[in-house]
Amino acid sequence: METETRPDSRLDPIGVFDSGIGGLTVAAALSRLLPSETIFYIGDTARVPYGGKSRKTVERYSVEIGGLLLAEQAKIIVVACNTASALAVPRLKQIFNVPIQDVVAPGAAVAVRTTRSKRVGVVGTRATIASGAYERAIQALDPTIEVFSAPCPLLVPLIEEGMFNDSITDQVLARYLQPLLEQSIDTLVLGCTHYPLARQAIARAAGENVTLVDSAENCALAVQALLKANSLAAPSDQLGHLNVALTDATEGFLRTAERALNLQIGDVELRSVQAG
Amino acid sequence: METETRPDSRLDPIGVFDSGIGGLTVAAALSRLLPSETIFYIGDTARVPYGGKSRKTVERYSVEIGGLLLAEQAKIIVVACNTASALAVPRLKQIFNVPIQDVVAPGAAVAVRTTRSKRVGVVGTRATIASGAYERAIQALDPTIEVFSAPCPLLVPLIEEGMFNDSITDQVLARYLQPLLEQSIDTLVLGCTHYPLARQAIARAAGENVTLVDSAENCALAVQALLKANSLAAPSDQLGHLNVALTDATEGFLRTAERALNLQIGDVELRSVQAG
Repeated sequence: METETRPDSRLDPIGVFDSGIGGLTVAAALSRLLPSETIFYIGDTARVPYGGKSRKTVERYSVEIGGLLLAEQAKIIVVACNTASALAVPRLKQIFNVPIQDVVAPGAAVAVRTTRSKRVGVVGTRATIASGAYERAIQALDPTIEVFSAPCPLLVPLIEEGMFNDSITDQVLARYLQPLLEQSIDTLVLGCTHYPLARQAIARAAGENVTLVDSAENCALAVQALLKANSLAAPSDQLGHLNVALTDATEGFLRTAERALNLQIGDVELRSVQAG
Repeated sequence: METETRPDSRLDPIGVFDSGIGGLTVAAALSRLLPSETIFYIGDTARVPYGGKSRKTVERYSVEIGGLLLAEQAKIIVVACNTASALAVPRLKQIFNVPIQDVVAPGAAVAVRTTRSKRVGVVGTRATIASGAYERAIQALDPTIEVFSAPCPLLVPLIEEGMFNDSITDQVLARYLQPLLEQSIDTLVLGCTHYPLARQAIARAAGENVTLVDSAENCALAVQALLKANSLAAPSDQLGHLNVALTDATEGFLRTAERALNLQIGDVELRSVQAG
């Protein structure tokens, strides 16, 4: 995509959104990799979660939040939500004239490079798994790879309760991963931006023969490349910061995530969505 | 509340709403108790759950869904969602000129009549428990009763997965109920309309010395009384039916609930909310 580069648009923020707080794993990965960049994050906590909702509804919500990010002068939109990445990115690319980075393609590309056995597992929300987005993205790169997917609907609620290391989470994971492990996968894509918060528990359940692919880290690398390709990277003498806005006043597990990700989040702004 | 009674308004439907599917436990109790009544149920599945959201957002959503029910000629609005009952009923009563029945007051009244030890437990979503609505309603009726509350945030996701009888659900319940049982409660209010679906598991975890108070059944009894007081009860020679509308096309666990509640739900209608 060609984008007109004004002299100062490199200083504009990276816009990042998620249905809620989970996408902060992407914001944290961006902060670590690109400390010169300012990030404007919006969590649509008034309507969280997107994971069980229809394509039309997820598109509608994503377009609305994308517009709020552009109102903040975002130079690029990062869809830090696997459900929205799986369902709404074509619509966002149709509507908005800034580079758009989803969270599915980078994870898929790394999974293809990682697997030796050509047997890859994917875990995510019900909507992400039902969309088949990872399967399509992986097989477009290498049609000989077999993809085994498992929806893990209880994992987000467990993470939002801060139960990262808990016997109940371990049992739930064991149950979800069993059918994938029976297929002898050697690579497992964490297809939901919440999941890196439970990375240790997932690694325990998957065992040492399975390599985890973290969609947050790989999304940050893709954003770095996209900024460079569009001459939009902030000058390296800048010091960026992270702004967080939510669409509902309840912060939910924001402070839990802040601690777990070692982020610095100050006052949280509130943004209205059309629901009210 | 005085309501002008037109000759035919007794034939209008009872309007029932919930953030999602859970309020069908109330619709099912109404159908059993009042077979002459037609019920129009709206589940706000585009924005489910309400349980973690702020008062202002829950008010806004409830007013919008209440308006949709009035567009269906509802003669009474039943707030079959404990979170909306706890947070939005004063606003609904301010705005709408039909009788409004919440789901908190009936459960509180039955708990007061049931307890011998004057030690009552309440379980519900985080928002319902934080609101203190049950505690206030119970102590308004009998200030000598001690109320012990526990938020059970994982219980709705477990129920929506159909895990009514599952060792993981049992462990989660044991953990949530332990502090209440240590307080020697003899009565436990199921303060969320989802919870009657897991009644057996909750009864196992609570033990035989604790009486469960089902807010769905008691809400239906309160609706019966309110219809009578307002001369709005359907003639007994009518045969009512249940209409279900959702605000998102994804039916989520509708069919799971339909089977568990032995309901007859035909085609599901779709209603737009302002979010789109």
